[in-house]
Amino acid sequence: MRIAVVAPSSRFEDWQAVRDQVGALAAARHSGLEVHFHPQCGLVDGHFAGTDAQRTDALVEVANDPSFDAIWFARGGYGSNRIAEAALARFGPAARDKAWLGYSDAGFLLAGLYRAGYADVAHGPMPRDVSRKGGEAAVGRALDWLAERSPHALEPGLDRGKRHAAFNLTVLGMLLGTALEPDLADHVLIVEEVSEHLYAIDRAMFHLSASANLRRVAGLRLGRVSDVLSNDPEFGEDAETIVRHWCERAGIPFFGRADIGHDAANKVVPFGRV
Amino acid sequence: MRIAVVAPSSRFEDWQAVRDQVGALAAARHSGLEVHFHPQCGLVDGHFAGTDAQRTDALVEVANDPSFDAIWFARGGYGSNRIAEAALARFGPAARDKAWLGYSDAGFLLAGLYRAGYADVAHGPMPRDVSRKGGEAAVGRALDWLAERSPHALEPGLDRGKRHAAFNLTVLGMLLGTALEPDLADHVLIVEEVSEHLYAIDRAMFHLSASANLRRVAGLRLGRVSDVLSNDPEFGEDAETIVRHWCERAGIPFFGRADIGHDAANKVVPFGRV
Repeated sequence: MRIAVVAPSSRFEDWQAVRDQVGALAAARHSGLEVHFHPQCGLVDGHFAGTDAQRTDALVEVANDPSFDAIWFARGGYGSNRIAEAALARFGPAARDKAWLGYSDAGFLLAGLYRAGYADVAHGPMPRDVSRKGGEAAVGRALDWLAERSPHALEPGLDRGKRHAAFNLTVLGMLLGTALEPDLADHVLIVEEVSEHLYAIDRAMFHLSASANLRRVAGLRLGRVSDVLSNDPEFGEDAETIVRHWCERAGIPFFGRADIGHDAANKVVPFGRV
Repeated sequence: MRIAVVAPSSRFEDWQAVRDQVGALAAARHSGLEVHFHPQCGLVDGHFAGTDAQRTDALVEVANDPSFDAIWFARGGYGSNRIAEAALARFGPAARDKAWLGYSDAGFLLAGLYRAGYADVAHGPMPRDVSRKGGEAAVGRALDWLAERSPHALEPGLDRGKRHAAFNLTVLGMLLGTALEPDLADHVLIVEEVSEHLYAIDRAMFHLSASANLRRVAGLRLGRVSDVLSNDPEFGEDAETIVRHWCERAGIPFFGRADIGHDAANKVVPFGRV
């Protein structure tokens, strides 16, 4: 099995160290598993891993290469929204046969792929998570899912009878109304957040819960909300209280917490039915 | 003339000092001008100037009181989105005869009022701006507009033949798709921003420029983008380049810069025709 890694978002300066660590992990866990880091991972253009054109070209190249079985987004940060629509328009049939895995900023691409009917799209750990404390467990989990669909890699509360989708809260808010927004009717929607103020989470929930699309979800589960930015004055409510508040106002069932987040414990959530 | 000040957003702990300064300015500039600070300005509930119910009740009370000629939002921060729809639903005919002035987070209310057909809604300085360096000029400008519609208070580039609207960029993004979103077709839209990362501005422009409503504006002008949060790595483009990029991608004419922002030089932009 061959996995291609590309970096559609922020620049990825430690990519060679990550490549070596992830390669060693892959070799140790699954014989015959090859993880190919596209050299685009090493490009730099300001904030990004290469210009929009360079990131688009690399993504289109691996998507359309039938020798790859999966595309694994290298890291988050910011920027895949700038290229997602144009890249998707250039994907051929070989792209639909692949698995796609990532989270955080890569959610823009997961959304566009899922909207376009790609069957094997999932929210889960990325190569650069190997640099986190305990990150080898996260990357091992992603590799096990990519290589063998190992059940241990899955978010433990997934409901086999239901469709699911998972997103970073801010990313989901920013893709509403764009060409990337997927139909989430009857889905269990799982969201997580990192490095935001609580007032921004409240504001994002105001925005999301007003969406007719979001109001049709089966229910919402909240992953971890980590590294909350401090605010003066304190907001006065925690993230779960905020999310419950807006779900209740909008008539969206709140289905409790979920085991995803910007951390080494992040589990895999396949889009659609498990 | 009587102006009522209420605080629909963040708590306003220095409200009595601001009230005294603004009262003195009003008395010095316009005889017979009374600025009434509703005692709700002094309430505190966590982040907010009182609970949602308290802020809503105060706003509804002054909106429906025919003895006030104008409602002036005390300050920004965060929180008017939580009460705007419910408050507007309780406004009676007296509310439509009033002028409404504010900016920043108060943009949620300006949007909802303008959407509901209120004729005298404007984006401009608020009482708490008096605490800024040089802020007496900003508040004097707002008072001159409220009392006499003084032309010197207006943003100098307004086009008398066109309709206008002005918003904080993030606030506008978060109200898209909500019950507060006004029709901006054929408007000159002016946006400004404060205390955001450049990548967040890029992401907000991605979101805004995908909106069918925004794609129908006559054109966009960019106010000041101040106190940009530093980022590692640097984004690599400045705010104007970012805004021009997304306008070009979406076919939205870019009409240049505008004299509004989170500062003492902030000018008044009446919604609709000047």
